[in-house]
Amino acid sequence: MIVALAGGVGGAKMAHGLSLALTTEAAGPATLTVIVNTGDDFDHYGLRICPDLDTVLYTLAGLANEATGWGVVGDTTAALDMLRRYGEEAWFWLGDRDLATSLLRTARLSAGEPLSAVTRGLAQALGVGARLLPMTDGLVATIIQTPDGELAFQDYFVRRRHQDVVSGVRFAGVEHARPLPEALAALTQAEAIILCPSNPLLSIEPILQMEGMRAALAQADAPVVAVSPIIGGQALKGPADRILAAQGFEVSPLGVARWYGALLDGLVLDATDAALAPDIAALGVRPLVTQTIMRDDADRERLARETLAFAATLAHGQASHPTGAAEDDARMKQG
Amino acid sequence: MIVALAGGVGGAKMAHGLSLALTTEAAGPATLTVIVNTGDDFDHYGLRICPDLDTVLYTLAGLANEATGWGVVGDTTAALDMLRRYGEEAWFWLGDRDLATSLLRTARLSAGEPLSAVTRGLAQALGVGARLLPMTDGLVATIIQTPDGELAFQDYFVRRRHQDVVSGVRFAGVEHARPLPEALAALTQAEAIILCPSNPLLSIEPILQMEGMRAALAQADAPVVAVSPIIGGQALKGPADRILAAQGFEVSPLGVARWYGALLDGLVLDATDAALAPDIAALGVRPLVTQTIMRDDADRERLARETLAFAATLAHGQASHPTGAAEDDARMKQG
Repeated sequence: MIVALAGGVGGAKMAHGLSLALTTEAAGPATLTVIVNTGDDFDHYGLRICPDLDTVLYTLAGLANEATGWGVVGDTTAALDMLRRYGEEAWFWLGDRDLATSLLRTARLSAGEPLSAVTRGLAQALGVGARLLPMTDGLVATIIQTPDGELAFQDYFVRRRHQDVVSGVRFAGVEHARPLPEALAALTQAEAIILCPSNPLLSIEPILQMEGMRAALAQADAPVVAVSPIIGGQALKGPADRILAAQGFEVSPLGVARWYGALLDGLVLDATDAALAPDIAALGVRPLVTQTIMRDDADRERLARETLAFAATLAHGQASHPTGAAEDDARMKQG
Repeated sequence: MIVALAGGVGGAKMAHGLSLALTTEAAGPATLTVIVNTGDDFDHYGLRICPDLDTVLYTLAGLANEATGWGVVGDTTAALDMLRRYGEEAWFWLGDRDLATSLLRTARLSAGEPLSAVTRGLAQALGVGARLLPMTDGLVATIIQTPDGELAFQDYFVRRRHQDVVSGVRFAGVEHARPLPEALAALTQAEAIILCPSNPLLSIEPILQMEGMRAALAQADAPVVAVSPIIGGQALKGPADRILAAQGFEVSPLGVARWYGALLDGLVLDATDAALAPDIAALGVRPLVTQTIMRDDADRERLARETLAFAATLAHGQASHPTGAAEDDARMKQG
């Protein structure tokens, strides 16, 4: 049993790599559980839209638009164009096939089905073998704090193209939401726990803030390995670099290691940043240096195999963590 | 001011003809009010779908699919195909552009806007000059009664392809719904009131059953003229022929005249049925025989002009109505 924590595009690619790596092994794909951020979810035109869940869903189903990383390959925008014809701003890109996903999800949620069951149904229909779990069946909304006030996540991320300075992040409703019991059980049974190369603050942090989740990772037998989303001082996609910097962390795999702190047993970093490996090791986090950019399915599968093999060499919680920073749930600056 | 009562495809074509006829006159298009059946409206995947309103909207906007008569020209079905991929039956044809209309309408209704305001907004955005009014801002649901029980309208009409024997029709909620004040006012001010060649029982009857509507027609100064949807013993489209027959009415313009009864001052019928003109006149309804099949915009405009010119020769309520049948609101058989 492998458990991956994932957000959007980078997380989806890594989850797909793990799925490919595990499918071709004797183990079979049923041994992969992907726990996905839902803090980005929002309501738009009455539809419940779950961008990260859908990105992982489409990617695992082999339906993702490879050019964007999100959305369905070959999707059209007839509905969106018509909305614009009606004078709507229609700022959130929603392909016609994407719309069907949200429409069906919304209808099933309205009928009383929890998000986890809806997600299971969609994934089964698309032939996804891995178990796809939302981080919660509850409602959590990632709120971006800026010097000019708070922004709803998609307002910040899509509408304003993540150009605002992020002074802090909070997860509204996180104190009431509960992780899924099967997610906690999977962490207990896991052989390896992978923090995918998603935005550590915006995509992985909301999952970790679910009640009992951080403790489940700390108490798991399995080693916890992150794959750095920062390469050569930049995020491959999105604002992770700027947000890490604004929080006072170095924009590098070392900063990522410091951010995750004592949670981590190992960190996979790109060869570009090989020089940082000794500093990461000095934090008590074992580094693995390799090629981490996933340009195609072969890259994904290779990175997944290397990450799993690396994890198999690690014991959980045995590294010394001189900083111990990650024990502090409230370490994120509040804007 | 011309007022038209309309249902779906036939009604939309006639309304479009009236719009074309009035636009090219000095009067301008603002003098046309179209009151549209909403008994067919239903909820599907959480969306409020208004088939007749949309058909009239698209037709007046020049966006209608001429091949089907309904839907948007060139519309695609990416969302519907995706729903099917998720294992959904997706029995109701809903194009991607159509979906946008329903999505926006549902969102605006959920925000508290009445259907009439939503409809006005959509029509304005698409450049429709005529005033498009739903028959009510309330909820009315046409229920089809069959020997095997009741069917929701779209279940009967689309899903089961109107093959069931119709023993009766009822309009659930009609006792609580109210017509729009502007519809009643328009009838008072009208120079002509046109009952479009829509299904008399399924499309026009629900409008007439709105409280005060039948009285408004009876008391109007304007003549009331229907265009027969029955030509040569058949409905051009849909089940009007079978339903009229099941209600004990002749499937002909004469049967249509009898159905509407004392409400009518004139009836426009197709040349195919010219032999029935004397029998119609004998009912106290003035006949106009002409070509009534609307194959293109020119047909629509010509038929509208002829109908308006015919109406201008009629006085309201001066014909003798030996049958007087239409005074009885409860004349429809209950199954």
